[in-house]
Amino acid sequence: MSDIYVIGHKAPDTDTVCSAIVYAGIKGYKPATAGPINEETEFALKQFGVAAPEILENASGKTLVLVDHNEPGQRVDGAEKILAIIDHHKMNFNYPDPIFIHVEPVGSTATVIAKMFPNEVKANKTYAGLLLSAILSDTVIFKSPTTTEEDKKIAQELAQVAGVSDITKFGVDLKKAKASIKGKPVADVVHVDFKDYDFKGKKVGIGQTEVVDIEEVYERKDEFVKYLNELKNSKGYDMVIFMATDIIKEGTELYYVGNSAIIEKAFNVKVSGPSVWLPGVMSRKKQVAPPVEKVYLEG
Amino acid sequence: MSDIYVIGHKAPDTDTVCSAIVYAGIKGYKPATAGPINEETEFALKQFGVAAPEILENASGKTLVLVDHNEPGQRVDGAEKILAIIDHHKMNFNYPDPIFIHVEPVGSTATVIAKMFPNEVKANKTYAGLLLSAILSDTVIFKSPTTTEEDKKIAQELAQVAGVSDITKFGVDLKKAKASIKGKPVADVVHVDFKDYDFKGKKVGIGQTEVVDIEEVYERKDEFVKYLNELKNSKGYDMVIFMATDIIKEGTELYYVGNSAIIEKAFNVKVSGPSVWLPGVMSRKKQVAPPVEKVYLEG
Repeated sequence: MSDIYVIGHKAPDTDTVCSAIVYAGIKGYKPATAGPINEETEFALKQFGVAAPEILENASGKTLVLVDHNEPGQRVDGAEKILAIIDHHKMNFNYPDPIFIHVEPVGSTATVIAKMFPNEVKANKTYAGLLLSAILSDTVIFKSPTTTEEDKKIAQELAQVAGVSDITKFGVDLKKAKASIKGKPVADVVHVDFKDYDFKGKKVGIGQTEVVDIEEVYERKDEFVKYLNELKNSKGYDMVIFMATDIIKEGTELYYVGNSAIIEKAFNVKVSGPSVWLPGVMSRKKQVAPPVEKVYLEG
Repeated sequence: MSDIYVIGHKAPDTDTVCSAIVYAGIKGYKPATAGPINEETEFALKQFGVAAPEILENASGKTLVLVDHNEPGQRVDGAEKILAIIDHHKMNFNYPDPIFIHVEPVGSTATVIAKMFPNEVKANKTYAGLLLSAILSDTVIFKSPTTTEEDKKIAQELAQVAGVSDITKFGVDLKKAKASIKGKPVADVVHVDFKDYDFKGKKVGIGQTEVVDIEEVYERKDEFVKYLNELKNSKGYDMVIFMATDIIKEGTELYYVGNSAIIEKAFNVKVSGPSVWLPGVMSRKKQVAPPVEKVYLEG
């Protein structure tokens, strides 16, 4: 078997894991994850009878295909040799050699892979099911503003191959698998999907969790704020943001520690406490990271 | 007509110009160049009956597709909104939104475009001829170490469509069109294909010209060295390199101004003057920029 690993970003989500599995399968490479998979991804893998990939805590000495990310801060520790990148995020990438890179501005990396390998995916129920799960996860069942018509069209085609008759119901079941925060330590909830950014030399961390009932978050508000403060102080962040995104109400309670003026400017809101409700905000990539970065860049 | 421009790097070469024309034609966009085209490109365009594209000195306010480059230093002045990138170079790109990016580690951007649009290219003699010219130019008639088997295979297919029976002869005719430096000012020769790099915060410029007779360069050695010194001092370069590449002898006389220890370390040679002959060195991208950058990175 090949010694090339296909791996997604740290704090793996369903798109990163399923994209790695399918791309590795098609190419004859090994899939891996940069950490344990979450309950939503577990649900998707179980649904289509696939085992969780090997966890690669450190990729030193390995040749890597990066899926679903490109920025250094999101990369597995020890990454050195990069063979290719398949992604749907904004680019912040500097590498000394020319390599294969394919990025499209669509709702998920799974959509990109389905477009790159239409024949392989149509002939394989498992691949289709995993990619469908990834699209539904990353587009929040097509509610995220990152969603494109291509995501919807390809999801329909994949559902047919995978034998999923009710896409929305499947998406809600998938989301529910990790949507309750009851009984989970706040640190786990914040880090279930957490990314580090470099905004003009300042370190900013943005975590996101999706819930089906935002009240579960409000009840533990003090716990979250205390944890975010600890995180900021212990890890040298200029700002830490935590998005509690209610996928039913379609909005985000955004908690932050750092300069409130940045939040006010980025989202054009008045804040008077450690959090603010942002109606319609579902996407870190499209609606939170860019306006915050813009404020940093404008100084 | 669309208001989207497809444009290559500054100091346009045949790959950058022909790739822009073909991609723009297929997509219904406008081709443009970031400066006047060189004699080799003129030869290729005349051969297949195509007019030179509009010169865009400043791209402010325009939406751009970048072909054959991605680094900021090589971009047309005023570039702001970027829609897509098609390239074959190493990546050094940071942009606030996700966009379409397709890069492959092959010998020319023309090869990438021929792979992306096989049907469109096979049905169009002009597209095939322009892309063939671009491949032969960028791979130095397959002699450059950047050449891949795909470049050769695709060039054969394109030659058939374009009605070119002897690929090598066509390539030599193309190269000869700009290979003589007789009567040309040294500044023009150095800048015919000149790129700025940022190596660990230091500005390094590397120009390259291809000749069929290196003696023409040796005869004017003092003129070149004087000009490179002026360029370094007036434009804030840490180092300026000029590659006089003999495509028949298959090697490069490398002129430099700056710290000679960097050149000695990068190419593992002893230098005792303003230049050194590097046998087998044909490619700035693969054989000159990377080892020089490495020395800068290692401090």
